[in-house]
Amino acid sequence: MGQIQNKINRGNPFEEIGEIKRGTEEILLEEELLEKLSRGRPLRVKTGFDPTAPDLHLGHTVLINKMRQFQEFGHTVIFLIGDFTGMIGDPSGRNVTRPPLSREQIEANAETYKEQVFKILDPELTEIRFNSEWMTPLGAEGMIRLASRVTMARMLERDDFKKRFVDNQPIAIHELLYPLAQGYDSIALKSDIELGGTDQKFNLLMGRELQKQYEMSPQTVLTVPLLEGLDGVKKMSKSVGNYIALEDPPNEMYGKVMSISDELMWRYYELLSFRSISEIEGIRHEVEGGANPRDAKSALASEITARFHGDAAAGRARDAFVRQFARGAEPDDMPHVRLSAGSGGLEIAVLLRDAGLVESSSDGLRMIRQGAVRVDGERISDTKHVVTPESSLTIRVGKRRWARVEICHDSPG
Amino acid sequence: MGQIQNKINRGNPFEEIGEIKRGTEEILLEEELLEKLSRGRPLRVKTGFDPTAPDLHLGHTVLINKMRQFQEFGHTVIFLIGDFTGMIGDPSGRNVTRPPLSREQIEANAETYKEQVFKILDPELTEIRFNSEWMTPLGAEGMIRLASRVTMARMLERDDFKKRFVDNQPIAIHELLYPLAQGYDSIALKSDIELGGTDQKFNLLMGRELQKQYEMSPQTVLTVPLLEGLDGVKKMSKSVGNYIALEDPPNEMYGKVMSISDELMWRYYELLSFRSISEIEGIRHEVEGGANPRDAKSALASEITARFHGDAAAGRARDAFVRQFARGAEPDDMPHVRLSAGSGGLEIAVLLRDAGLVESSSDGLRMIRQGAVRVDGERISDTKHVVTPESSLTIRVGKRRWARVEICHDSPG
Repeated sequence: MGQIQNKINRGNPFEEIGEIKRGTEEILLEEELLEKLSRGRPLRVKTGFDPTAPDLHLGHTVLINKMRQFQEFGHTVIFLIGDFTGMIGDPSGRNVTRPPLSREQIEANAETYKEQVFKILDPELTEIRFNSEWMTPLGAEGMIRLASRVTMARMLERDDFKKRFVDNQPIAIHELLYPLAQGYDSIALKSDIELGGTDQKFNLLMGRELQKQYEMSPQTVLTVPLLEGLDGVKKMSKSVGNYIALEDPPNEMYGKVMSISDELMWRYYELLSFRSISEIEGIRHEVEGGANPRDAKSALASEITARFHGDAAAGRARDAFVRQFARGAEPDDMPHVRLSAGSGGLEIAVLLRDAGLVESSSDGLRMIRQGAVRVDGERISDTKHVVTPESSLTIRVGKRRWARVEICHDSPG
Repeated sequence: MGQIQNKINRGNPFEEIGEIKRGTEEILLEEELLEKLSRGRPLRVKTGFDPTAPDLHLGHTVLINKMRQFQEFGHTVIFLIGDFTGMIGDPSGRNVTRPPLSREQIEANAETYKEQVFKILDPELTEIRFNSEWMTPLGAEGMIRLASRVTMARMLERDDFKKRFVDNQPIAIHELLYPLAQGYDSIALKSDIELGGTDQKFNLLMGRELQKQYEMSPQTVLTVPLLEGLDGVKKMSKSVGNYIALEDPPNEMYGKVMSISDELMWRYYELLSFRSISEIEGIRHEVEGGANPRDAKSALASEITARFHGDAAAGRARDAFVRQFARGAEPDDMPHVRLSAGSGGLEIAVLLRDAGLVESSSDGLRMIRQGAVRVDGERISDTKHVVTPESSLTIRVGKRRWARVEICHDSPG
């Protein structure tokens, strides 16, 4: 799925930079990037990944999509796995998110990464590297030489270091070495550009500075924003629960995209869709002209689902969603209730109460007035509606309360 | 010269600690050291040397003498040459006293060290080690793990770091790694005690802390003071010029010791003499009872000169000193002057003037009154002293003006 068929706009750096700037947080420096794009040769685009967390969600793909954009323009993307530092972890034991990993774990995680990212990236245009390749031969001596290039004051400019320093929270010395190691990766890889989240800005700039010190052309730094989760407020994260995992099954993935607000939809279009800026502008104009935003959302949900599960699965997910949510399709596990009624039938409010769908018949009447009651998919607005015996009905109250109700004749006597 | 013949007081830790405490600045912790000395087995006594500066002066021997004391009590002394860090130097180029050294330079410097320190230490009881032995295999990974053991706040407790940090002077990150490397040496060497100058206290304590972190028994830290130079005020140093180099020739070494003040002499006895505390107390009592302090100083000058040049050379140096300074022995290069006089002879003040030793005969009279004029070594106090013809005299005015004067008869008419 990751193979890129068309290299778009190759040769026009101004158009190229337009797509590359899309959804980015910051480019340091933009005119430098433009100059690099104008060279007419593939650039080396570095992106580092932490080997401890290979289970990706859509938030992570903002970065991977940006890598893909560079591939679309013919550049070489380096998927760098920080195995060297991953195998060390946080030896001080203070950081539970950085446990040391074995070589086997790292390799297994790398495989998991590949399975996921090659749904977005073209394997042919991706260089997968492990930083132990150059960090191990560096030695204690090289580490010391590297550390001589940067001052403590410079390190304390990193926001979290500064905050901890000011708050008298401990900063272990090895924490200062990790940004240096990350910077050295840029030297070893001769990267022209490094991509990362906004929280990585300091470390990306460290690579830039160290390259200068090693008399190399410094890498351009490009940061992408953290994606908002399904709630549209908090950043997408597993711990908050507002996420779409790449491993989510197709129906769940499709449905989750359909659940976002219209406003968030445009943000997701910008950061997650592979459609061009002009295509997305076209869709936006249609919606502003009166088209149903649900259709735009459906197109986005289909695109994303197809990316990770293929077109067929995305089509089935769309159909299932339409059946269940748009038309109010019945869930498989709704309760079956058997009621009896005289020849005169059963008043709907009483039926709702007897089927356990509402607390009381007056509660039932209220739900009818709110338009929240459907019988076989049809909304009931008449509070005096009567259901005749010998019928079998699917009744829905609100979004979540369902029952299948069979009504029999009262047995005489 | 370095061989130690007698192990004194072996087996009595209280007497032992008395000598070990002599002239020390600080012992951390003294009760711990006493406990270690009580174990009845040789302790491992580490002392680190910078491979960039192998030309030693007496100031450096305060530390080496302390090492020797431990040898006298049967302990194993480790002469550690920091070749690993020496070969790296200060890669930031900010520190001119830390240029990187080649393997050849380090080995040549190590030989120079040996030649000098084995005049004090017993080679049989000295373990010479190079820290590249364990620092090279440590690798970048080990360096990072090591760095995880210490916080930045702890590092900033070092006086010079704190001062530079507060003054916004740059501190390069590798400077934080050097104390860690020095501390790791203590782990690798399993040292029980580390000796160093007072300026090394932070680094010595770092070894102690790291050993604890590696679940080893922590080393005791013993600091020795910086020796005052010949002026008795400033610390002995080559740049100030107030030093006695171990390579100074015997006469110069002897004469320099004789030039110090009586007060400084006792300090030098404490820090530089191998005589026991009680012997030195005996000498002090004699001087306090009226003995000439010059004799005590002469004994010290002989001891120190003999240490580096042997007894015979020290004896010759003493003789030369006595001849030239105490008895006013003649320099080899004094001017020869021929004067003539009648049978009545020549008045001394006129002679001094005519020989060019004073400006005028009244100047000559003044020098005689000051007791500054000697003829053949005898002080002349009589301003009317007359020298008869046909004599050959060595005349000295003050400390530096000398002449050999021949007086002939006036030739008649």
